[in-house]
Amino acid sequence: MSYTDHFSIANIPYGIASDASHADKAVVTRLEDLVFFLAELDLEGSESVKSALSQPNLNALAATSKDELKQLRASIQIVLKDQFVVTKHGKKVEDVTLHMPVAVGGFTDYSCSKEHNENASQAMFGKSVIPPAFPHYPMGYSGRPSSIVISGTPIRRPCGMYKAGDSVEYGACKALDYELEMACVIGKPSKMGDHVPLKEADEHIFGLILLNDWSARGIQGFEMTPLGPMNGKSFGTSISPWVVTLEALEPFEVTPPPRDIRVPAFLEEVKQKPSYSITLESELLSEGKATKLCKSDVSWMYWTFRDLVAQQTVNGCNINTSDVLATGTVSGKGDDEHGCLLEATKGGKVDFTLVDGQKRTYLQDGDGLRMTGYAGNGVGFGDCTGFITLARAL
Amino acid sequence: MSYTDHFSIANIPYGIASDASHADKAVVTRLEDLVFFLAELDLEGSESVKSALSQPNLNALAATSKDELKQLRASIQIVLKDQFVVTKHGKKVEDVTLHMPVAVGGFTDYSCSKEHNENASQAMFGKSVIPPAFPHYPMGYSGRPSSIVISGTPIRRPCGMYKAGDSVEYGACKALDYELEMACVIGKPSKMGDHVPLKEADEHIFGLILLNDWSARGIQGFEMTPLGPMNGKSFGTSISPWVVTLEALEPFEVTPPPRDIRVPAFLEEVKQKPSYSITLESELLSEGKATKLCKSDVSWMYWTFRDLVAQQTVNGCNINTSDVLATGTVSGKGDDEHGCLLEATKGGKVDFTLVDGQKRTYLQDGDGLRMTGYAGNGVGFGDCTGFITLARAL
Repeated sequence: MSYTDHFSIANIPYGIASDASHADKAVVTRLEDLVFFLAELDLEGSESVKSALSQPNLNALAATSKDELKQLRASIQIVLKDQFVVTKHGKKVEDVTLHMPVAVGGFTDYSCSKEHNENASQAMFGKSVIPPAFPHYPMGYSGRPSSIVISGTPIRRPCGMYKAGDSVEYGACKALDYELEMACVIGKPSKMGDHVPLKEADEHIFGLILLNDWSARGIQGFEMTPLGPMNGKSFGTSISPWVVTLEALEPFEVTPPPRDIRVPAFLEEVKQKPSYSITLESELLSEGKATKLCKSDVSWMYWTFRDLVAQQTVNGCNINTSDVLATGTVSGKGDDEHGCLLEATKGGKVDFTLVDGQKRTYLQDGDGLRMTGYAGNGVGFGDCTGFITLARAL
Repeated sequence: MSYTDHFSIANIPYGIASDASHADKAVVTRLEDLVFFLAELDLEGSESVKSALSQPNLNALAATSKDELKQLRASIQIVLKDQFVVTKHGKKVEDVTLHMPVAVGGFTDYSCSKEHNENASQAMFGKSVIPPAFPHYPMGYSGRPSSIVISGTPIRRPCGMYKAGDSVEYGACKALDYELEMACVIGKPSKMGDHVPLKEADEHIFGLILLNDWSARGIQGFEMTPLGPMNGKSFGTSISPWVVTLEALEPFEVTPPPRDIRVPAFLEEVKQKPSYSITLESELLSEGKATKLCKSDVSWMYWTFRDLVAQQTVNGCNINTSDVLATGTVSGKGDDEHGCLLEATKGGKVDFTLVDGQKRTYLQDGDGLRMTGYAGNGVGFGDCTGFITLARAL
């Protein structure tokens, strides 16, 4: 899939690439199906921005000021309107290798979608249960940064401990799931002890990415009480190669759903439209054929990316450039709006049919999962894809 | 406190320091009350080890092979037996500034102590409850790496959301606790998808440190269901400046308590004495006076550091050099063996008396918490100390 329409001149995402003529990883952007190594374009920008363009990850670029980033973005948009530049410097996207966009520091996965909580509890317990803290603030858990990998990286079926009837077994995960998520990448850091108030949150967000929080349901289910998810998640998390900036997403700002209860002062929003309208989709890939799984939207989320920054720092926890704060599964109410297989299959009890007639509850070896996100008017995220490989021998 | 007896020639821990004549942070060791900048000693070692000695953290040194590290250790022990070298190169410990020993990658906090689980559940619920997975494998949660700080760093009382009777309040934490822990620092990394078997675990452990997992009990209690602890912990975690190597701890190897049930194959131990005898102590510091809180021992832990490495990677999660895997609170059965105030005060219901007659349940602003660990025969960890400062204004 080319996703040509995701990458108009209105987008200008950032990524990291190398190719035959660029052995060293460096900062790139994408216009339609062409990739541009930014250090070789004649761009306006501060010295710190220019030196950041030759780095092997986006951390230095993300750490520069929003003013510098706005200047860079405007300059790229001007330069890439010149067809001579496009022809001379554009590399076909299939001829470059995309790499991890950031060297991830910390990783938190939040729970932004009320519908995910409702659907998942319904699937597991037969009744809809919202965790007690959910309406008060975005709940989350610290994730594992070491195993965050770029789209395309194979995901090995994990081994671990899970319940099988009344006994506890050690083996390869039997209920391998995906989670349709997005995440914000932190730009400007904060100091330990400080709080980033909601009204300043956007200043700390470099951009958004797609994120697949692969989940081993049996392992996760057994370990969660009382310390939360760990080995059921930490075997791998996939992210998209392109970071789309908040500037590109401004035309797609929307108001989130109304609050069910009054929130604490630090979560009282001051921005008119603090969320985004971004359509998310997931597909299962089997033997070259794609079966649609879910269509969902970021605008349905109860909590916003801004809320995540305020909540992450409310206790004085410091955020660093390249930290990843994810949304948790983004789901809706409808049967085709379930952002993970746990929801869609009622906890593995109801199977579904692929386009070629095969049945599935959870992911099989060789299956792929592709997710995409699109805001509209030429601004999208491309895709985030991963294939399941055989578990190691015990 | 000088802890002179912790740092005999049998110890040779590694740390990072700077001083008036060493503006750039570099690798140091300690002998009694003297600190040595290793790059200026005439040591045997590979080029990679020698270049690692001038780095601003221990990551490069920790990533070298165990053989290289053993050679370095032996060489330091020979060189520091020369009184001329000691006199010429030794800096008084009070004249150097100690810095974070490693640039922490990932952080996991485990639950190794059965007694902590028993005491804490007794304190909170009035009955001893062991989590269902505890006897099967070491349970843990991913922690927040950004807010791990060196001993001596002030810890600001966190703000957050907690239950107050039937209502939910936003404010400064009222139940600020410490947790008496140790951690291993990872040296040799593993690849994503691979498992580090128990028999190879020691090869991946660079050394051990003291760790204080500061905990905001009200915030933690409200957030834990179902995603585990996050904001109740992520405001700060203190570690000791000295990393004591497994080589120095060899004489203190012991057998852990027997297993209650048969463990899975990947946790079947092959080493005779896979744990360590290390006495841990904690004291509350108030107005210059120390009140003893707890005396505990690493040898009481149900799960070992080796188990943590095997469990962390059993699902294919990769470990990186400088990752920190902590033990959770190390407690015993006795009233003076409670490694946190939650246990000692029965969840804040029973106060205790400081040496000067003041009462406490949880920590007050200005209070300090000092922990220390000592294996014996001149091998110890010094201390890990932090003081509580006033919460920010809301």
